[in-house]
Amino acid sequence: MTIAFGDRLAAEFAAGRHLCAGIDPHAGLLAEWELADDAAGAERMGRDVVAASAGVAACVKPQIAFFERFGSAGLAALERVLADARDAGLIVVADVKRGDIGTSFAAYAEAWLAPGSPLESDAMTVVAYQGFDSLAGAFDLVRAQGKGLFVLAATSNPEAREVQQAVRDDGRTVAAAMVADAQRFNDESLADGSVGSGSVGSGSVGSGSVGSVGVVLGATLRLAEYGIETGGLAVSGTALPVLAPGFGAQGARIEDARAIFGGLGAALLANESRGILSGGPAGLAGRVRARAEAVAAALA
Amino acid sequence: MTIAFGDRLAAEFAAGRHLCAGIDPHAGLLAEWELADDAAGAERMGRDVVAASAGVAACVKPQIAFFERFGSAGLAALERVLADARDAGLIVVADVKRGDIGTSFAAYAEAWLAPGSPLESDAMTVVAYQGFDSLAGAFDLVRAQGKGLFVLAATSNPEAREVQQAVRDDGRTVAAAMVADAQRFNDESLADGSVGSGSVGSGSVGSGSVGSVGVVLGATLRLAEYGIETGGLAVSGTALPVLAPGFGAQGARIEDARAIFGGLGAALLANESRGILSGGPAGLAGRVRARAEAVAAALA
Repeated sequence: MTIAFGDRLAAEFAAGRHLCAGIDPHAGLLAEWELADDAAGAERMGRDVVAASAGVAACVKPQIAFFERFGSAGLAALERVLADARDAGLIVVADVKRGDIGTSFAAYAEAWLAPGSPLESDAMTVVAYQGFDSLAGAFDLVRAQGKGLFVLAATSNPEAREVQQAVRDDGRTVAAAMVADAQRFNDESLADGSVGSGSVGSGSVGSGSVGSVGVVLGATLRLAEYGIETGGLAVSGTALPVLAPGFGAQGARIEDARAIFGGLGAALLANESRGILSGGPAGLAGRVRARAEAVAAALA
Repeated sequence: MTIAFGDRLAAEFAAGRHLCAGIDPHAGLLAEWELADDAAGAERMGRDVVAASAGVAACVKPQIAFFERFGSAGLAALERVLADARDAGLIVVADVKRGDIGTSFAAYAEAWLAPGSPLESDAMTVVAYQGFDSLAGAFDLVRAQGKGLFVLAATSNPEAREVQQAVRDDGRTVAAAMVADAQRFNDESLADGSVGSGSVGSGSVGSGSVGSVGVVLGATLRLAEYGIETGGLAVSGTALPVLAPGFGAQGARIEDARAIFGGLGAALLANESRGILSGGPAGLAGRVRARAEAVAAALA
């Protein structure tokens, strides 16, 4: 039986796991780990983070750019990292930020989400510069194969505001509309039984209480500036998964997560990368555990 | 001596070449070619299109999603297609639509544009949902290594309008601002001598008359609806490269290109995929030549 992605998230949250551990094998961190700046180095870091995160973090999030820079060898290394994560039953959010239309976007969805694909992950980050429905090529994988999406909504870099705060025909900002569209997708999928306890979902791990399409929202932002309401969405039928970078080295404090996200934080994945990866492999397991506990405590 | 990407485009245009031949090995076309729907099939189609396009088309544009769906094997196949194109001196625009920030976007730029990278191409398509300056990690490769970018501005799918026609703080649409930002980058690079005949450019192939950062504009759109002016930009110091899908099967007529793009069409790359790829490998060279001639005639 296929379990809906949102139900898998709900099970993680029920177990007190909200940390998303980043896998960012860029040159600086590889040097700190005394690893070569090549595909083998990236693979070593990735497999170590997977081993340290299984049963401790809710998920891992490999930044695919840092593997892609090594070409096919980098993706082959990534495939071995992903296989480790599958063996460990650890959720993988592929941070690929793919976006396109029609058969092209469907091919990206096939690459990262189709069962049996060498790059198969549980969810992927996506960009909808071409409109929310440009992502339609992934919707069947979400509805029928237990896969998830995280749609970029509002991101922390200052130059992003020019696009994400732009105002649409309907008066909403681009970012607020991404949040609303993701929520609508989840509510409709629950209503028609295509995702959740009605069909794919298993009663043992959830009941459609968490959606399978989430958003990326930077934890360092003031969401009100985007017209994103943090109070109202908790009353909706499904909690919207929020993948939030920005905690730790980027400046947001996990202790402030409730204040930052309000009702939007009911299904929060707090991403941390540098705080976990800095310092090399020696203390890795301890750092992942410490950050997982801090996140759990803040969100309890 | 490194030749600026814009100068390489200018040389193609001077030779009457404006066609960008798509390489889209999706399942349907591979079946039509009697090729297996796998990495080897995609490689065969890609290498055939390269062979048919060298000296005939201005560039080839592989849609990377159709290779990525085969994982590392797909990228290895793509690497061999790219090597063929380099050997043939054919410009490659990697249609990857990558977008991210900081070191992550820089890693994508390294993957697709850095000299010596296994996936090295001449230019890549990029998405700036996180703001035009989120692309900064590629700017040095443009200025110093003769590489190019095509920034998604206005695309042909109807659901794209919700984002691309959204209005920014400064009153411009998101799409119009992408066009203006690309133009500004080119003008500033020419002014400070970092791209063009002053430094990287070679006097033998151009003089900064064509910029190295272009935009993607769908040929089926009415650009006025986006506030994109098609009259004024021709007076600028550098012509803005425009990569335009939508001709042929998608409905726009190449004969109408001048009417559609006006002054924006001075550095036009007309993309065609289905019209070239449909029908299998037998008549491929003839179809590429026929489309190249039709494009040249329409733009002469």
